[in-house]
Amino acid sequence: MKLTSNRTRENSANTEGRSIHPATDEAAESSNVPVESAADDRRHFIKRAARLATLGTTVAAAPLARGNTIPDSWQTPGADFSNYGQPRSAIDSPIRWVSADRSVPGDGVSWTPLHALEGTITPNGLHFERHHNGVPFVDPARWQLTIHGKVDRALAFSLDTLHRYPMVSRTTFIECGGNSNSLWHPNPSQAPSGYVHGLVSCSEWTGVPLSILLDEAGIDIKAGWLIADGYDASGVAVSLPMKKILDDTLIALYQNGEPVRPENGYPARLLVPGWEGIVNIKWLRSLRVSDKPLMSRFDTVSYTDLQKDGSFERFSFEMGIKSLITSPTAGDKLSQRGFHQISGLAWTGNGKVSRVEVSVDNGASWTDAQLQQPVLDKSLTRFRLPWSWDGSPVKLKSRAYDSSGQSQPDRDSLLTERGTNMYYHYNAVVIFSINSDGLVRHAYS
Amino acid sequence: MKLTSNRTRENSANTEGRSIHPATDEAAESSNVPVESAADDRRHFIKRAARLATLGTTVAAAPLARGNTIPDSWQTPGADFSNYGQPRSAIDSPIRWVSADRSVPGDGVSWTPLHALEGTITPNGLHFERHHNGVPFVDPARWQLTIHGKVDRALAFSLDTLHRYPMVSRTTFIECGGNSNSLWHPNPSQAPSGYVHGLVSCSEWTGVPLSILLDEAGIDIKAGWLIADGYDASGVAVSLPMKKILDDTLIALYQNGEPVRPENGYPARLLVPGWEGIVNIKWLRSLRVSDKPLMSRFDTVSYTDLQKDGSFERFSFEMGIKSLITSPTAGDKLSQRGFHQISGLAWTGNGKVSRVEVSVDNGASWTDAQLQQPVLDKSLTRFRLPWSWDGSPVKLKSRAYDSSGQSQPDRDSLLTERGTNMYYHYNAVVIFSINSDGLVRHAYS
Repeated sequence: MKLTSNRTRENSANTEGRSIHPATDEAAESSNVPVESAADDRRHFIKRAARLATLGTTVAAAPLARGNTIPDSWQTPGADFSNYGQPRSAIDSPIRWVSADRSVPGDGVSWTPLHALEGTITPNGLHFERHHNGVPFVDPARWQLTIHGKVDRALAFSLDTLHRYPMVSRTTFIECGGNSNSLWHPNPSQAPSGYVHGLVSCSEWTGVPLSILLDEAGIDIKAGWLIADGYDASGVAVSLPMKKILDDTLIALYQNGEPVRPENGYPARLLVPGWEGIVNIKWLRSLRVSDKPLMSRFDTVSYTDLQKDGSFERFSFEMGIKSLITSPTAGDKLSQRGFHQISGLAWTGNGKVSRVEVSVDNGASWTDAQLQQPVLDKSLTRFRLPWSWDGSPVKLKSRAYDSSGQSQPDRDSLLTERGTNMYYHYNAVVIFSINSDGLVRHAYS
Repeated sequence: MKLTSNRTRENSANTEGRSIHPATDEAAESSNVPVESAADDRRHFIKRAARLATLGTTVAAAPLARGNTIPDSWQTPGADFSNYGQPRSAIDSPIRWVSADRSVPGDGVSWTPLHALEGTITPNGLHFERHHNGVPFVDPARWQLTIHGKVDRALAFSLDTLHRYPMVSRTTFIECGGNSNSLWHPNPSQAPSGYVHGLVSCSEWTGVPLSILLDEAGIDIKAGWLIADGYDASGVAVSLPMKKILDDTLIALYQNGEPVRPENGYPARLLVPGWEGIVNIKWLRSLRVSDKPLMSRFDTVSYTDLQKDGSFERFSFEMGIKSLITSPTAGDKLSQRGFHQISGLAWTGNGKVSRVEVSVDNGASWTDAQLQQPVLDKSLTRFRLPWSWDGSPVKLKSRAYDSSGQSQPDRDSLLTERGTNMYYHYNAVVIFSINSDGLVRHAYS
């Protein structure tokens, strides 16, 4: 009775004389209801058998000992509405891990916690960041984007003007060229996946195709380069081949539905699908059409890889084919034998992920994982495989293939081909070893 | 020189003796570069003409009068990294509008600002909410989901146990049965679209197919109903046909990649694709298999519509075919004649949106809008149409069609068919009138 009178005091929406928790009342009662067996129902058995087959094995949930009890949360009103929602708690909600040189304001990275996420979309608050001098304050009323250099008409676009142009949306990943680069080192990192491989995130981006703005400016078709820079204080400037710009590059104004956030380039960033993060210029300021690359620090000193023959590779824009198991991950401890779902991500800068195979015996045998549909071009692709752990030591790994015919190399092949002086573009097969205690560690072989 | 020395002090990553802003230097110079005409380049002209044709007309951007100037944001370091990112500003970033009866804690709604968003994904912080008694505090360590009633084995699932089951992802909308219901009234609302139609949002949801858990419990196939309730203090309990539950219902644990937030049902909510919001039970607590519906307040008093013949319609779960122009929207003022992109959303609870047609002359003629690809089942679908406003008064509207053969009714047809006593399921064609000053208002005809 106390519950009922609480309810009527606390919730004027309760227009019934009886308890507003009929489900509970009947739940308590239901635990005394004689159990009806479904064993003789053929249709049920067939349907059930079919489902369990796809599952491989089942997870033993606990028997419900007694009827449901009255939860504390039924005794009191909940929290009120908010204009903009937040995650549950900084204590145990997924957060970005920040690796920054505090002696240089805003120089560093924040990592997407891939090991704590599911599906393919990265929520905006967890999108990775690589800043060279922090997040600039940009006044949208004073912001302008300029297009100049070898054009018929040098133009300036205000934010209001830009919003009148036709927009398109595409779901695509952005990955830092230096993602996973700790794995070039002789010893594997034992950090969770997101803090080794989490300089990649995936969003639905919406913006104006840059080709439309360049058409209005009237570009010199013989000028093969576009030099882009931004409003931040780090002097980031990059040179991009005009062909890619005219093909699929956007001026992104929205990320996952809402205006691009300051940390991701508000009010506008360049979106160059499938190409290394540095060229997706944030806080976009100037686009200069040129007949030659600028050879800025970011074209030359950074984002350039020393090859094993002593030569260096520049303008290596396209990100390679890559995959990664995100659950389980290094540092996990499998609490029980039996069913676990292996889940991970695959992506490629060239087309679509066509196939991901998973091995639970360190490569002796491989099984194709299920790919979350639809698989999109240059987008994170979720793969999943049901797996039953028998308690013995195992090694798990995944290998991805894409529509351009590329396949993900194992670590030995990558080192043989590229040498050991590389800093960027690490995309080798990732291995996790699990010992008989269920402890998961990152391994190189 | 001051700029350079600032940089070298502030950014140890600057390893060059010269200014780290070469792009600027050349930008300033470039405004004096003699303009090269592209007029004689045939290929360029053909490509450009093709693009402008798709655009219909172009937006006149301002000529760039002088070279770029040095922005303030180049003179100072930016803001530092954060573990979880936030939108720019509560002042001018999109927020949810809250309509709540403050005399009843947490009873009300918060609206997704559809008119301020683009693409199809709703960021988690802007997902609409309908709470009956606020957001309960749920301790994940003590949370359990029970399956009982007419089953072989009544079961209890802890959060850890549930996380071991196979998961799938699907991008789908959730819409409150009462969305747009102010339009049942004789006078149209003049609020922006999101605050009339914004009780619909779209996310990539990831969770466990409920059919797998019911299989483990062993359901009595003759028991046609499932009764679900949650941990909040409002006593929400709903009755659902078992057929839909076994077909595509999920226990959702992740929303747009991260764990479902408290306001959206942490740690787990029921996801019943395409069906009215109320049945997507948040803070899920109990699932009882039954041979009859509960006939709770939410089965009967609420979410039931009085028909024109005096009868009432219950269990009207499926949301209808619907579309809406989100830009421009009521309260906007078109600042200039010429090109504007018409952008909007369409959705249906039965299959996929197959087509959206737009009229800019109040229905005298219609043009098919472009649908953002891929179009997903029971998901928000973005449509767009280039449009040039000549400055005369016009009326804009959209009409959607779906793969099940449904088409969106106009308001007269809807009222003729359903009468004027309805409260839920308003899905008529939405009209915006624009006067010669460019003022946009919501109209009924």
